[in-house]
Amino acid sequence: MPKKPLIEEVNKHIYKNSISFHVPGHKNGHVYEGTTEFKNFLKNDLTELTNLDDLHHSEGVIAEAEAKLTNLYGSIQSFFLVGGSTVGNLTMILATLNRNRKVLVQRNCHKSVFNGLKLINAKPIFIAPEISEHLGVAGGLSLESVKAAIHQNPEAKVMILTYPNYYGEIYDIRKIIDFAHGKGIIVLVDEAHGAHFQLGNPFPTSALKYGADIVVQSAHKTLPAMTMGSWIHVNSSRVSIKKIKEYLEILQSSSPSYPIMMSLDGARSYLEEFTANDIKYTITEIKRFKTMLLKIEGLKLVETEDPLKLVIQVKGGCNGKIFQEVLETHGVFPEMSDQKNILFILPLLKSSMAYPFEEATNAIKQSIEKVSHLKNENRKVQLHENKSCTTLEISYSEMDSYKEEYISINKAMNKVSAETITPYPPGIPIIIRGEKITNTLIDLLNLCIENNIKIQGGKYLSNKQIAVLV
Amino acid sequence: MPKKPLIEEVNKHIYKNSISFHVPGHKNGHVYEGTTEFKNFLKNDLTELTNLDDLHHSEGVIAEAEAKLTNLYGSIQSFFLVGGSTVGNLTMILATLNRNRKVLVQRNCHKSVFNGLKLINAKPIFIAPEISEHLGVAGGLSLESVKAAIHQNPEAKVMILTYPNYYGEIYDIRKIIDFAHGKGIIVLVDEAHGAHFQLGNPFPTSALKYGADIVVQSAHKTLPAMTMGSWIHVNSSRVSIKKIKEYLEILQSSSPSYPIMMSLDGARSYLEEFTANDIKYTITEIKRFKTMLLKIEGLKLVETEDPLKLVIQVKGGCNGKIFQEVLETHGVFPEMSDQKNILFILPLLKSSMAYPFEEATNAIKQSIEKVSHLKNENRKVQLHENKSCTTLEISYSEMDSYKEEYISINKAMNKVSAETITPYPPGIPIIIRGEKITNTLIDLLNLCIENNIKIQGGKYLSNKQIAVLV
Repeated sequence: MPKKPLIEEVNKHIYKNSISFHVPGHKNGHVYEGTTEFKNFLKNDLTELTNLDDLHHSEGVIAEAEAKLTNLYGSIQSFFLVGGSTVGNLTMILATLNRNRKVLVQRNCHKSVFNGLKLINAKPIFIAPEISEHLGVAGGLSLESVKAAIHQNPEAKVMILTYPNYYGEIYDIRKIIDFAHGKGIIVLVDEAHGAHFQLGNPFPTSALKYGADIVVQSAHKTLPAMTMGSWIHVNSSRVSIKKIKEYLEILQSSSPSYPIMMSLDGARSYLEEFTANDIKYTITEIKRFKTMLLKIEGLKLVETEDPLKLVIQVKGGCNGKIFQEVLETHGVFPEMSDQKNILFILPLLKSSMAYPFEEATNAIKQSIEKVSHLKNENRKVQLHENKSCTTLEISYSEMDSYKEEYISINKAMNKVSAETITPYPPGIPIIIRGEKITNTLIDLLNLCIENNIKIQGGKYLSNKQIAVLV
Repeated sequence: MPKKPLIEEVNKHIYKNSISFHVPGHKNGHVYEGTTEFKNFLKNDLTELTNLDDLHHSEGVIAEAEAKLTNLYGSIQSFFLVGGSTVGNLTMILATLNRNRKVLVQRNCHKSVFNGLKLINAKPIFIAPEISEHLGVAGGLSLESVKAAIHQNPEAKVMILTYPNYYGEIYDIRKIIDFAHGKGIIVLVDEAHGAHFQLGNPFPTSALKYGADIVVQSAHKTLPAMTMGSWIHVNSSRVSIKKIKEYLEILQSSSPSYPIMMSLDGARSYLEEFTANDIKYTITEIKRFKTMLLKIEGLKLVETEDPLKLVIQVKGGCNGKIFQEVLETHGVFPEMSDQKNILFILPLLKSSMAYPFEEATNAIKQSIEKVSHLKNENRKVQLHENKSCTTLEISYSEMDSYKEEYISINKAMNKVSAETITPYPPGIPIIIRGEKITNTLIDLLNLCIENNIKIQGGKYLSNKQIAVLV
């Protein structure tokens, strides 16, 4: 079998230099006005031609490429996704949950999980995560909170977890999976940031290895796939592969992108051929980078369990957003920042590859000199949130028949929120659309406003207004 | 405002040659093993960086690019799609229909329309299309059949049409839209093959111009966008833009592909700057191609209303599939073929662009010499189908609780089919999953089997077996 079945077959087709009377309309790049790089690349943007198989009914080179993926991850069956982990999360929910059923959900999940719940009018039981010690951001669930939620909701037969968090922090997911399985609960894991965990030590262990029933990973986040390239692994016989295929066919384009699928074939091959020596090289390079960074005065590093994630902070207290702006003018683009942290996602390098860590270090050094005098003007506030499980006061299907109205937050007690409001950090929603507004929540919202904490959602919160369903 | 807002901003970013510590994992192509063309291109595969906007909350260059699209098509608001017209069709259905409602649907619609109906457990009223005269394939609806369906189902307030068909054939959709609007019915149009109709004469007129409420178009089919690049146009105030946005956010990746979005910006610009002279050039080139083809002995051309579509047939009767195979060995790749026709999708050329029509003509000439002696072994059968409106015997939500069983088709009367079975041509489903099997349908299925007609679905139909729901 070829090493990269899909890539090799597409390249064979390109080599023929054939005349296209088929879609796409750019005709192998002939009909295109733009940069030469873009135009030349378009030869790869093919369609379901002879020998190029069909993602939705794969039995040729795409089936071979997916078989290699299945084999590498040791799942029962793994599938290419061209619509990102968004499609993977929607699919795992729709394929395992019937309408109107209770489901246990980690409160700080990705919005695609909330969207999946909405599509099937699920009755979510939101379980609050721990706050991670080092970074003060949303972490994972504790076994205790999971046990309590299951005890209170014995009808729930599906649980949805996020692992690791954005910063590469993990938690003891194995115990949670084992406990859930003991209660007959299927465990779905959004492991978007963990596609490279398959490499094993010194990287964290994937939830696949711990027996999670379905795991979704973004191959484009830490592996060299193109954006929207992800995969879904079916990892237990408790899951119907027929249903997974059914929803993948519903949710994914009937004309899937060949470049994205090729990049998935390439990313799988990249991982498969990543040697112990390559791991050593990557880790050594990252250590070298960190050593250089540590010599920069005024810079603080925070490491997490995933070596590919690195958080940097300015000792003086400069807001991370401001530091990011300065860094970018010096040519270094981080993944994201909040009022304290800047997150770097580091490259997974083969030993033949150089990465410009010296240049990056110089740029960071120059940048920090410009911001080291700045203080963080945000007061440090610990948002002690309500840790009990919550559920929706108004179901997803009922919400559509309500109107939305802005009222003063101080008059919002016992009303139902029309907004999901999330302070960063820690990145855990204080309130989720459809939940009832309690006195404790009003206090938290006031605390956020008074302390100028960065909020997602809450359009008029700075005016002390909140949208409610009436 | 820049001519190509998104493309220009991405190019500015690329020009900076910055160091990536963000997703995607290929780091601007640094971490990639493959062809140089692919590697160089990956600089374009960016993410929501500073100044690059966010598709789901666009207020920068993506908003500008979409505003230009809206302006060009003269809609109320048009949106970029990165998940193909599949996502557009799902969105227009989910945003306009509540669960469990009746909806009028052209029977030969794309599978994404069936999938959308399933997601909201719609009660479809399938309206059979006419069979097109020249090609014998599924065409459009007659006003009479639409009137009858509306008369029988006055509760249905949404209608879903396909226009044009795959071969570029149109029908009098204006009268149907007007009649439906007179009855308060919203009209959704899957115009996947008509993104270039915006150019006007000599191309057919878009359903947008006739006032269809929502129109979905594949920019990648006839315009130079990348595969999965499509757009959805909201064209009337009867549609809630808020709901359209809501479902686009649910169904599309939270990390949409920048290359696909850039190619949409480029395709819009290409169309916008397509001059009367360019139209003349394209039409002249196509005529020149046809004139060359007409000189080939044994070849027959069939034109449709869309100049970009050309059907060729072998006069001797050679099966289109066999002719396609031979053509491909000579380096010419058509869009598709059936037992009689080969469909070419022709390029939309600017007057500066050459296309290898001579080489194609030579290849076609050489190919036809190899197949002109072959006869079509398929007998010519006219499948007179049941033209009345049909609906589902078992609703989508109930289907999941049934089992599937294969039984002899001759014992299938009054059972409910678990398969959708479509003969090509004409490409209209004889039976749709969930419909009741009548005696007339059994006769049709037998006719298909006896005459060896190409079938989609019907896994064991050649053994005279059909899957039913029990």
